[in-house]
Amino acid sequence: MGIDTYQEPVIYMRRDCHVCRAEGFEAQTRIRVEARGRSILATLNVVGSDLLEPGEAALSEAAWRLLGAQQGEPAVLSHPAHLESLSRVRAKAYGGRLSAEDLNAIVRDISAGRYSDVELSSFVTACAGDRLDLEEIVGLTRAMIHAGEHLEWRRTPVVDKHCVGGLPGNRTTMIVVPIVASCGLVIPKTSSRAITSPAGTADAMETVAPVCLDLKAMRRVVEQEGGCIVWGGAMSLSPADDVLIRVERALDLDSTGQLVASVLSKKVAAGSTHVVIDIPVGPTAKVRTAEAATALERQLAQVGHAVDLEVSVILTDGSQPVGRGIGPALEARDVISVLGGKPDAPADLRERALLLAGRVLESAARVSRGEGRALAESVLDDGRAWKKFQAICEAQGGMSTPQQAPHFRPVTASRSGRVTRIDNRRLARVAKLAGAPKSPAAGLILHTPLGAAVEPGQPLFTVHAEASGELEYALSYASAVPEIVMVEEHAR
Amino acid sequence: MGIDTYQEPVIYMRRDCHVCRAEGFEAQTRIRVEARGRSILATLNVVGSDLLEPGEAALSEAAWRLLGAQQGEPAVLSHPAHLESLSRVRAKAYGGRLSAEDLNAIVRDISAGRYSDVELSSFVTACAGDRLDLEEIVGLTRAMIHAGEHLEWRRTPVVDKHCVGGLPGNRTTMIVVPIVASCGLVIPKTSSRAITSPAGTADAMETVAPVCLDLKAMRRVVEQEGGCIVWGGAMSLSPADDVLIRVERALDLDSTGQLVASVLSKKVAAGSTHVVIDIPVGPTAKVRTAEAATALERQLAQVGHAVDLEVSVILTDGSQPVGRGIGPALEARDVISVLGGKPDAPADLRERALLLAGRVLESAARVSRGEGRALAESVLDDGRAWKKFQAICEAQGGMSTPQQAPHFRPVTASRSGRVTRIDNRRLARVAKLAGAPKSPAAGLILHTPLGAAVEPGQPLFTVHAEASGELEYALSYASAVPEIVMVEEHAR
Repeated sequence: MGIDTYQEPVIYMRRDCHVCRAEGFEAQTRIRVEARGRSILATLNVVGSDLLEPGEAALSEAAWRLLGAQQGEPAVLSHPAHLESLSRVRAKAYGGRLSAEDLNAIVRDISAGRYSDVELSSFVTACAGDRLDLEEIVGLTRAMIHAGEHLEWRRTPVVDKHCVGGLPGNRTTMIVVPIVASCGLVIPKTSSRAITSPAGTADAMETVAPVCLDLKAMRRVVEQEGGCIVWGGAMSLSPADDVLIRVERALDLDSTGQLVASVLSKKVAAGSTHVVIDIPVGPTAKVRTAEAATALERQLAQVGHAVDLEVSVILTDGSQPVGRGIGPALEARDVISVLGGKPDAPADLRERALLLAGRVLESAARVSRGEGRALAESVLDDGRAWKKFQAICEAQGGMSTPQQAPHFRPVTASRSGRVTRIDNRRLARVAKLAGAPKSPAAGLILHTPLGAAVEPGQPLFTVHAEASGELEYALSYASAVPEIVMVEEHAR
Repeated sequence: MGIDTYQEPVIYMRRDCHVCRAEGFEAQTRIRVEARGRSILATLNVVGSDLLEPGEAALSEAAWRLLGAQQGEPAVLSHPAHLESLSRVRAKAYGGRLSAEDLNAIVRDISAGRYSDVELSSFVTACAGDRLDLEEIVGLTRAMIHAGEHLEWRRTPVVDKHCVGGLPGNRTTMIVVPIVASCGLVIPKTSSRAITSPAGTADAMETVAPVCLDLKAMRRVVEQEGGCIVWGGAMSLSPADDVLIRVERALDLDSTGQLVASVLSKKVAAGSTHVVIDIPVGPTAKVRTAEAATALERQLAQVGHAVDLEVSVILTDGSQPVGRGIGPALEARDVISVLGGKPDAPADLRERALLLAGRVLESAARVSRGEGRALAESVLDDGRAWKKFQAICEAQGGMSTPQQAPHFRPVTASRSGRVTRIDNRRLARVAKLAGAPKSPAAGLILHTPLGAAVEPGQPLFTVHAEASGELEYALSYASAVPEIVMVEEHAR
């Protein structure tokens, strides 16, 4: 049909179609579609007009891709077998617990594209917040590992780093990977796209190099350069995860259990033995309190232990964005200025990357405890990391310069004073309304960090957008919610 | 576009459309569509083929109806305002509580069609089972009352009855209403369609008379006949409720809080002062234990008190279906044989209807406590109830005979013995797989109640379907799950 329904597979059939009548198919019926030995589940949309000839059925773009269909090919349609795992999702919604077997069945069905969007939304909501206990999280992690591909490497240790997110601009991965790889460690980094934020590392990296590599291409890059920065979703390392992330994004909903399972399953599947996890803590970060951070740290360590992964956690300051840019291309620009040793490079991003890279080097016993940061700094300062980054980009398919948005306008201070608080969530919302991450050049540049002195009319941040409608939309939200960057007159 | 996406409004736009580019619209974006002063929220499906001319947008059937659009008319598309009530749904998913104000905002947005299916699924799941406390249920009930129309009647008391469902074939309403109306009480009965069952009362009634009456038509029927049996969803008495029921049905998910709010809000909106509620209790009914029934009874009474409705509850036997038919037309046939005083009419359905009608007559002080059943029986036996039923059907638009399904086949016993257990849920699933309630003649007839003696090869139940594919589908499920009607050899 040439209709893009995003990832949910849809089949279009005529209202007077004899198959619909014989089988009792109606709008929203879930239908099994089989062609040349492959089969998918699709949701029926009934066509009352003459878009289809009698006897024809059409597929949405997602369904077409998933089935690998050919124009004019015959297809067999039938009622799908009863999806038993859905009864387990219901039990969870009612407050029950999910066994390892339940989670295997659910993740297997999700990976195979058997859940409709409405069913995925129910699963995500039933597991939201803290609704999964430790055993369930271990079960979900194992289920996600089993559902996907698994990488093995000739050298060990195989290291990785991860940030739980929620802090705009925190793009340390693109700096840590080249530092660590320069020191001779293997770091096959798969990153995710944004879940509820304006940019994930994969989104930012994609503005400088291709990130949609398959397993074979990724392996070649890592064997050649020691590291890579690719999109995990193109990897089939944890196929259920990207499906869940898409629905979490639509609902703007997070789940601690799914977070832990998502992070750790991909590390194990990528063959990692050691992982360093950065948890930024702050009142408007994803993790808001020290207690919540400690609870998450414990869960990560315990689940890591259960799946043979050595997990090391660093709690960092999450009170304000890192770097200056928020949005894929704008964050990539910050990274490049740090790697290139530019004098105006954001010092906070540099410092955070050195801290994390140092801890990775220590966790893999490359240096003694306490000496990691110094080694990382020397590799960054003498240009080896920058060279390695360029080499990785070239190996991934060629380096390019991040785009510049055609539309931008500043949001200015209405009074003089000092910046006393920055609302990361609302700042992220402005960047998202401006189009990030779907529009890579969209987002914003923050000019005034915490403590900065400002005068009336001075720009606080500049919103960038690829479309003028999006720019207006983001600015109208920003003016409706004035306290995103709070300036207080008598603060010092 | 002439595409039926069921109730979710969808807008179709070309991929190269300049509005999409300027506004940053992509597949799944929620878009505000405005035409001639009316506006709706619709989900974007992007069209890559030539189904649309440049500059054209098309709507799904639901969106077309909701907007009241005209062919060729100009429409204004924009980003919708941020839907604040969704942040409350998220808070609930994380385990928070919903205030009266939150629930008002959520129900108002749902009633206005502002929630996508994925968002509705999240709300339904976050409130599933017992996740709403008493105060939240009162808040939800009040919000549902305020969101809809409100009826007032010249005479009081205004009575009503309701069954919480879960027991196939329990179609007492169609017998109670004519009995009670014959006794001179006002009973403006609005019924729902099936949520997770093979038939609701509105589905069964629709096989004998029109049930989609508007408020004005319903008022005329009640003023003329003293009672009616119409579909509540056509009434706008609780517009959010039918939207929620649709998603609950897709997920096969129930919520105690939504159940209470759904039932009581419609009674209050219909102007009722007294309501009798039938709660069938049994291991495979909707309410499984006496404790659960008592908890539900307390919630109904407490919420009823909070909204000025006198609630009287009867706990009944829910161990097996009532009557013989399961499915809209098959259940209506049972009702007609009871009303018509046929010698082979199902005695259990008759007895249950008399019990409930008696309690309604008592609750409205028409007779003294303990004398209701006898009055009800006299009205049923002397033919007044049957005449009143026919008069109500005529007043609602004309009486007709329930359809007979073209395809049917029995499921037979594989051994001799007695029926020791009937799995209501699986029996209901067979009827649903056979097409009920969407196909009104579909369902099954149960031949062997609990305790019946059977021989090998003797029919246990006969499955009816409007399409041969559905018949096969239901029978293949029934043969895969043999213990739906359990026959034990040495049982007596």
